[in-house]
Amino acid sequence: MRSVTKDNITDVFTSYFGEDTDPRVKEVLTALARHMHDFAREVNLTHDEWRVGIDFLTRAGEITTPERQEFVLLSDVLGLSSLVDMLHSTPEATSSSVLGPFHVSNPPPLAIGGDMKRDFEGEVILVEGTVRDTDGKPIPHATIDIWQTAPNGMYSSQDPDQDIHSFHGLMTADENGRYAFTTVRPVEYTVPADGPVGDILRAAGRHPWRPSHLHYIVSAEGFRSLVTEVFPDDDPYLDQDTVFGVRDDLVMTYVQQPSGSFPDGFEISGKVDGTYARVDFDLVLAKA
Amino acid sequence: MRSVTKDNITDVFTSYFGEDTDPRVKEVLTALARHMHDFAREVNLTHDEWRVGIDFLTRAGEITTPERQEFVLLSDVLGLSSLVDMLHSTPEATSSSVLGPFHVSNPPPLAIGGDMKRDFEGEVILVEGTVRDTDGKPIPHATIDIWQTAPNGMYSSQDPDQDIHSFHGLMTADENGRYAFTTVRPVEYTVPADGPVGDILRAAGRHPWRPSHLHYIVSAEGFRSLVTEVFPDDDPYLDQDTVFGVRDDLVMTYVQQPSGSFPDGFEISGKVDGTYARVDFDLVLAKA
Repeated sequence: MRSVTKDNITDVFTSYFGEDTDPRVKEVLTALARHMHDFAREVNLTHDEWRVGIDFLTRAGEITTPERQEFVLLSDVLGLSSLVDMLHSTPEATSSSVLGPFHVSNPPPLAIGGDMKRDFEGEVILVEGTVRDTDGKPIPHATIDIWQTAPNGMYSSQDPDQDIHSFHGLMTADENGRYAFTTVRPVEYTVPADGPVGDILRAAGRHPWRPSHLHYIVSAEGFRSLVTEVFPDDDPYLDQDTVFGVRDDLVMTYVQQPSGSFPDGFEISGKVDGTYARVDFDLVLAKA
Repeated sequence: MRSVTKDNITDVFTSYFGEDTDPRVKEVLTALARHMHDFAREVNLTHDEWRVGIDFLTRAGEITTPERQEFVLLSDVLGLSSLVDMLHSTPEATSSSVLGPFHVSNPPPLAIGGDMKRDFEGEVILVEGTVRDTDGKPIPHATIDIWQTAPNGMYSSQDPDQDIHSFHGLMTADENGRYAFTTVRPVEYTVPADGPVGDILRAAGRHPWRPSHLHYIVSAEGFRSLVTEVFPDDDPYLDQDTVFGVRDDLVMTYVQQPSGSFPDGFEISGKVDGTYARVDFDLVLAKA
């Protein structure tokens, strides 16, 4: 169209598509361009602001490596990653939440009742629950990939002092869907704020903290895989997770237990003298 | 907010801003997030599609260098660059259009009536006009930075066989605002389609062509600088510029002239035997 104007540019964009364009490609790109155009018109985006945006993306590209994904982080702090998760969650199942960049391949096996903290110090947390379907029926033998931060706030892949498999474990629930393990509390940590996404957080007066959480990927044949996180209800950042990962149904409670009450049947049974905390969290999968 | 949902996530995002946030930063980021969220909800963006987007940005970062700016190219082919230009054009002045990546610093001086084609072959084009204000009054001594493609479709900065100043010139208009020079026709060319932006064009069934054009940056004290391009009305891509740069008032006409009619007062006067074309194009600046 010869006469492109600020009001018709979205229509011109749409008119450029080839006739054989995949309908979904056309739908997504048209909506993307329309929202981008609406955004620019609505805020009357200036050339200087446009250049700030180009410079931001360029710097994000420069800092991105296989280990540091600044574009995912941008999506996370803008809430886009969480929104995509929520769009594809099943209401009756456990909500999904962001995978994050700290999952490792080939996690070591963790027996039911096994200990994930190994030699790390701290109050013992006993986590248990049942993997079940949306009708409440236990799902036997689901696979649960579990990971969390060490007490220093770092995941194993960030910390040269940790074994790569530290605070990672792969459990198979029993025939009644039960899973159980011991660990120490995961802790709050900050997303990387030394790059361009950190500049956005600072410009917006936002902190880079995430509430502490346990990560789970739960898989069982015939069910949709669940990628999620669970958060303790006493975490100071529960209401302001910088990546918007918290959902009502992903909040767990550490229930304090008296000294001497630690149960049998765990790898560390008989070795826990003091108080400990118990978490009961069921994982509900939707049918595939 | 503990209970982030797909419907309230934009409000949660807005609630995270610090109290001292610059109002413009808050306005732009809020609108950006809201449009991004609306886009994702509207198309029900899937995890796989989200990953395609992250992969796209990552690859764009990888291919971007000081000479190859894939993020600018993305903005160009989505129409965002042109929209920002149009948002800040003055209706009574000549429309602005995209700067593009091929401008060079320190262009060589080009006298009024000078020849920009130098030793290149081709039918001579005589371009002239007046730089004037929005009341029609000539602006004396405006500076006009002019550049274009060589006949092979390449700008000097793309072409190791051209001098870096080839088809670039810096002219100062006379006291009556007149500018004039000779050249050969600029030619159509493609934007770089060998990177991720090329993948978008192919997926959309779009070609990578731009209609031929002359670039101008016009500056004069007391006036807003004008960055623009002018396009011939007989160009096959006039109605489908892949970067949306054409505006009604930026279309020029090559008027064919008979042999032997080339005027005096030009650097190449007396050396033009055959036919040539004449272009008359006034450049209208808005007051600063």
